[in-house]
Amino acid sequence: MAVVGATGAVGREILKVLEARDFPLSELRLYASPRSAGARLPFRGEEIPVEPLPEGPLPVDLVLASAGGALSKALAPLWVQGGALVIDNSSAFRYEPWVPLVIPEVNREKIFAHQGIIANPNCTTAILAMALWPLHRAFRARRVVVATYQAASGAGAKGMEELLSETHRFLHGETPRAEVFAHPLPFNVVPHIDAFQENGYTREEMKVVWETHKIFGDDSIKISATAVRVPTLRAHAEAASVEFAEPVTPEAAREVLRGAPGVELVDEPEKRRYPMPLTASGKWDVEVGRIRKSLAFENGLDLFVVGDQLLKGAALNAVQIAEEWLKGP
Amino acid sequence: MAVVGATGAVGREILKVLEARDFPLSELRLYASPRSAGARLPFRGEEIPVEPLPEGPLPVDLVLASAGGALSKALAPLWVQGGALVIDNSSAFRYEPWVPLVIPEVNREKIFAHQGIIANPNCTTAILAMALWPLHRAFRARRVVVATYQAASGAGAKGMEELLSETHRFLHGETPRAEVFAHPLPFNVVPHIDAFQENGYTREEMKVVWETHKIFGDDSIKISATAVRVPTLRAHAEAASVEFAEPVTPEAAREVLRGAPGVELVDEPEKRRYPMPLTASGKWDVEVGRIRKSLAFENGLDLFVVGDQLLKGAALNAVQIAEEWLKGP
Repeated sequence: MAVVGATGAVGREILKVLEARDFPLSELRLYASPRSAGARLPFRGEEIPVEPLPEGPLPVDLVLASAGGALSKALAPLWVQGGALVIDNSSAFRYEPWVPLVIPEVNREKIFAHQGIIANPNCTTAILAMALWPLHRAFRARRVVVATYQAASGAGAKGMEELLSETHRFLHGETPRAEVFAHPLPFNVVPHIDAFQENGYTREEMKVVWETHKIFGDDSIKISATAVRVPTLRAHAEAASVEFAEPVTPEAAREVLRGAPGVELVDEPEKRRYPMPLTASGKWDVEVGRIRKSLAFENGLDLFVVGDQLLKGAALNAVQIAEEWLKGP
Repeated sequence: MAVVGATGAVGREILKVLEARDFPLSELRLYASPRSAGARLPFRGEEIPVEPLPEGPLPVDLVLASAGGALSKALAPLWVQGGALVIDNSSAFRYEPWVPLVIPEVNREKIFAHQGIIANPNCTTAILAMALWPLHRAFRARRVVVATYQAASGAGAKGMEELLSETHRFLHGETPRAEVFAHPLPFNVVPHIDAFQENGYTREEMKVVWETHKIFGDDSIKISATAVRVPTLRAHAEAASVEFAEPVTPEAAREVLRGAPGVELVDEPEKRRYPMPLTASGKWDVEVGRIRKSLAFENGLDLFVVGDQLLKGAALNAVQIAEEWLKGP
């Protein structure tokens, strides 16, 4: 196996997840851009050297890539030609009809229809889908309105570094700067993630629509999203209002979510227990709570979902796809 | 005129707003709890002493109170008996049928039906209403789904202090504490503001429903809210999805909002201009932007609203009520 983009925020999490889940592999090659050359990353008690990424096939049968869309677009076809299965974390191939877009808990079967590349979903989509899919199966979602509270890690390690360093500057009376984000993030929220589209939505907001439709295999669900960057480090939160075709109660929804794989029901408000970045960070499961009957929809629920952007939103889901591929159909 | 709770976060803003708007007054008395006794606050070039609040009538014809619900509940009736008009910033009287709940831009006429007390709305409600009311008048809102990004100032000066001091601790490797908030706020978001109600919503979330209905004089609008505390200092942001009875376009909505008093249309995403706490803090107007056709509703809009919690959300609106009362019906 190779991890491409091994020194990035997602790459490092992939190594930790592979180790923690005892992923079966004979050899692990790590690749990154030449400026990371010489680095060594710890894995299973060893220090593995990081190699500069060649512009051609890799000597492995499986590539987990997390090095940006442009790089994946250029090199993934060469890795496939070299005989590897590529699990790609970028958005480069997600909307290609021939590329499966997979959350194993939702559409595991698509893994086995791959033609060399399997796409890992956008983090916001993956985290929301973990709560939405079991509810959709039980009560048929018709309409989803979601507002997000997205962490700095969505912009990689440099996003987290900018949030920390500029918060430090702010506390020392200096004006925070913005190089990674569109505006300074400390003590601010920024309703702008990825590029604006012609319809006024950002690409990040449209990813939730496009990818949920593709992963669920159902584009009849109407979805509207507002994606907002907030000054948190690595867990995305999402406030969702969902209208269902079938009658639904909060208790019935809780029952469904209690049995849903990859979901932790955290819904005891009287004990101050509800999903939060503070508790969901570093966790594999996605926290779901604040479940209540919607006051806007007849058959509706409001809920709050928080998941680690680097784990279920990226590294964990990619490793899970690889695990299921190894298990076979 | 008297300002009760003069040393609090809202009280201090009231003084600044009175000064900046050249509010006509012959005398200004400042009251606070005994522990603030001896303090002096600057106003129009003088230093005004802060008096301990007596448990009886005040020698003024107008009281702007911002010292919490319990205190207002106990003392406002005595101030009214003493001949004063009370403009109360707490939630103590907001839901009394005989008490007008006023945003001057929306229901100015209610001011003159007062029976001694006029209530100032909840901050989240007031900020949302500034955008929603002109749109409601033009296109008739039927359904509103709102998720909030609420600043620490909603918990007063001590809320802002806790956010700053605990952020400092976090950056120095210590574990942030929570005394004001339900959980540590630095680099976190907390979906819990005010007490949980039987229906699973918080009181803060229900205030948006109850108060919007009362201020608009229309309880047919279905409203569902998720109120979330985020690590910002003094401006609340809100992501709203609104379904209207009449056909609506983003351009028609922008035209309406351009002419709406107290609203600043900030909607040039291609120039990275949209509402943010960074730009709305300290501003009287409420910023509205990110206006786009909802993908969830047939006749719907998504929008993003940000307003200064201490100004339009509290001090400014209270002073505006007093100004309109002076002007007369």
